[in-house]
Amino acid sequence: MSHVTQPGQFITLEGTEGAGKSTNLMFIEQWLRDRDIDVVVTREPGGTAIGEAVRHILLDKQYGEMTPDTELLLMFAARNQHLQEKILPALAAGQWVISDRFTDATYAYQGGARGLPFKRIAEIEQWVQKGRFPDRTFVFDLPIEEGMKRVAARAELSGQHIDRFEQEKIDFFEKVRATYLIRAEEAPERYTVLDAQQPLEAVQAQLQAALMSMVSESANL
Amino acid sequence: MSHVTQPGQFITLEGTEGAGKSTNLMFIEQWLRDRDIDVVVTREPGGTAIGEAVRHILLDKQYGEMTPDTELLLMFAARNQHLQEKILPALAAGQWVISDRFTDATYAYQGGARGLPFKRIAEIEQWVQKGRFPDRTFVFDLPIEEGMKRVAARAELSGQHIDRFEQEKIDFFEKVRATYLIRAEEAPERYTVLDAQQPLEAVQAQLQAALMSMVSESANL
Ligand SMILES: Nc1ncnc2c1ncn2[C@@H]1O[C@H](COP(=O)(O)OP(=O)(O)O)[C@@H](O)[C@H]1O
Ligand SMILES: Nc1ncnc2c1ncn2[C@@H]1O[C@H](COP(=O)(O)OP(=O)(O)O)[C@@H](O)[C@H]1O
Ligand SMILES: [Mg+2]
Ligand SMILES: [Mg+2]
Repeated sequence: MSHVTQPGQFITLEGTEGAGKSTNLMFIEQWLRDRDIDVVVTREPGGTAIGEAVRHILLDKQYGEMTPDTELLLMFAARNQHLQEKILPALAAGQWVISDRFTDATYAYQGGARGLPFKRIAEIEQWVQKGRFPDRTFVFDLPIEEGMKRVAARAELSGQHIDRFEQEKIDFFEKVRATYLIRAEEAPERYTVLDAQQPLEAVQAQLQAALMSMVSESANL
Repeated sequence: MSHVTQPGQFITLEGTEGAGKSTNLMFIEQWLRDRDIDVVVTREPGGTAIGEAVRHILLDKQYGEMTPDTELLLMFAARNQHLQEKILPALAAGQWVISDRFTDATYAYQGGARGLPFKRIAEIEQWVQKGRFPDRTFVFDLPIEEGMKRVAARAELSGQHIDRFEQEKIDFFEKVRATYLIRAEEAPERYTVLDAQQPLEAVQAQLQAALMSMVSESANL
């Protein structure tokens, strides 16, 4: 009996801090598992032992002297390992992969916010990804102040410290948010922008609708 | 009184393990200082706080799963920081920079030995260095077995552990050595190949001759 495995779908979650990526990642994971879909959840920067070691450098506040190009190369070093070691093998084996951030975050943070030319990012992206993109990207869109309030409340619960990115000013995150929205507008077939200001149930109703169509499309392939 | 600072010279030392890079780096440093030249000595991967943190990941034997492209991107992330934070400012201020390894090592190790296409390395090199190369590269050339004997003797003294690269087999280092020699042959105006099998005094006599002409050329600029 021959059996051809259908490749899994690659979903990425994007948005500014506190927009609900991590919360909804768990929701998506559970929703897919309930439909007997084998899911791998992961995150960037990180997702592998090497990637998490690189993440540690990237987030460390002591490295204020890090240049935007160094940041970009470290992001893609971690991403290359993540793709080769974890994401691509999982997809090839038919698993769905959900990643908390991916390359859109690089365009938003290192491009829109830090000011690296998008063309310069696209060169390294092509070098590493060779035309491989997520199948679906959910952008959780939220006013920056609202996200900051949520993060402050979350931090009070968990005792987390802020990292090298989180110490940036509101203006920086406004640019991150705007870049996500522009990218989503330019390629609506890949992106779903969610109004993250709505109550969680409303956000998840939107998510469910999108997931439902992904599942039925992938079943029809 | 106006005073225009003449940019410093950028010297890199290359070669397989035990060929004498670190020993002769100290010799070159002292030789230049004796002639009142302001010198910065540094190394790769590393040379900055961020670069040394990346070096730590690169050399760690626990990361056997690191892919050649990840290795390459980490090398150039560290190198970009090294160039921007340390090498280029020093050269601009008129200091001479001597680095224990630089991009030729990437061609030799990640290219010749690990098998990454030179063209792929050249793309990232151009992206990071924008046409900036060392002014002079000394290649310390030594049969691999001879270098291994020296390293073993050195390790016995210092109690050093071998790292992720040093655990490779002889065949790997033969490719590293061959790649250095091919590159030196292709651009003789930049490289000086030294027979590192000769006694240290003989090696240093060759080095002195090359340094003497560098100093007089740079004085005539
Ligand atoms: N739609 C929502 N309405 C209100 N609070 C939310 C909503 N989505 C998430 N939160 C809360 O906001 C905080 C930040 O959410 P989180 O998922 O950690 O965001 P992110 O991972 O994008 O930084 C959490 O405490 C979470 O419970
Ligand atoms: N020309 C030489 N002849 C004999 N021994 C040498 C020579 N050059 C260096 N050594 C010794 O070989 C060992 C390795 O040299 P080192 O400078 O640490 O090499 P590298 O930095 O290239 O690995 C050291 O113990 C050093 O003293
Ligand atoms: Mg999160
Ligand atoms: Mg050495």
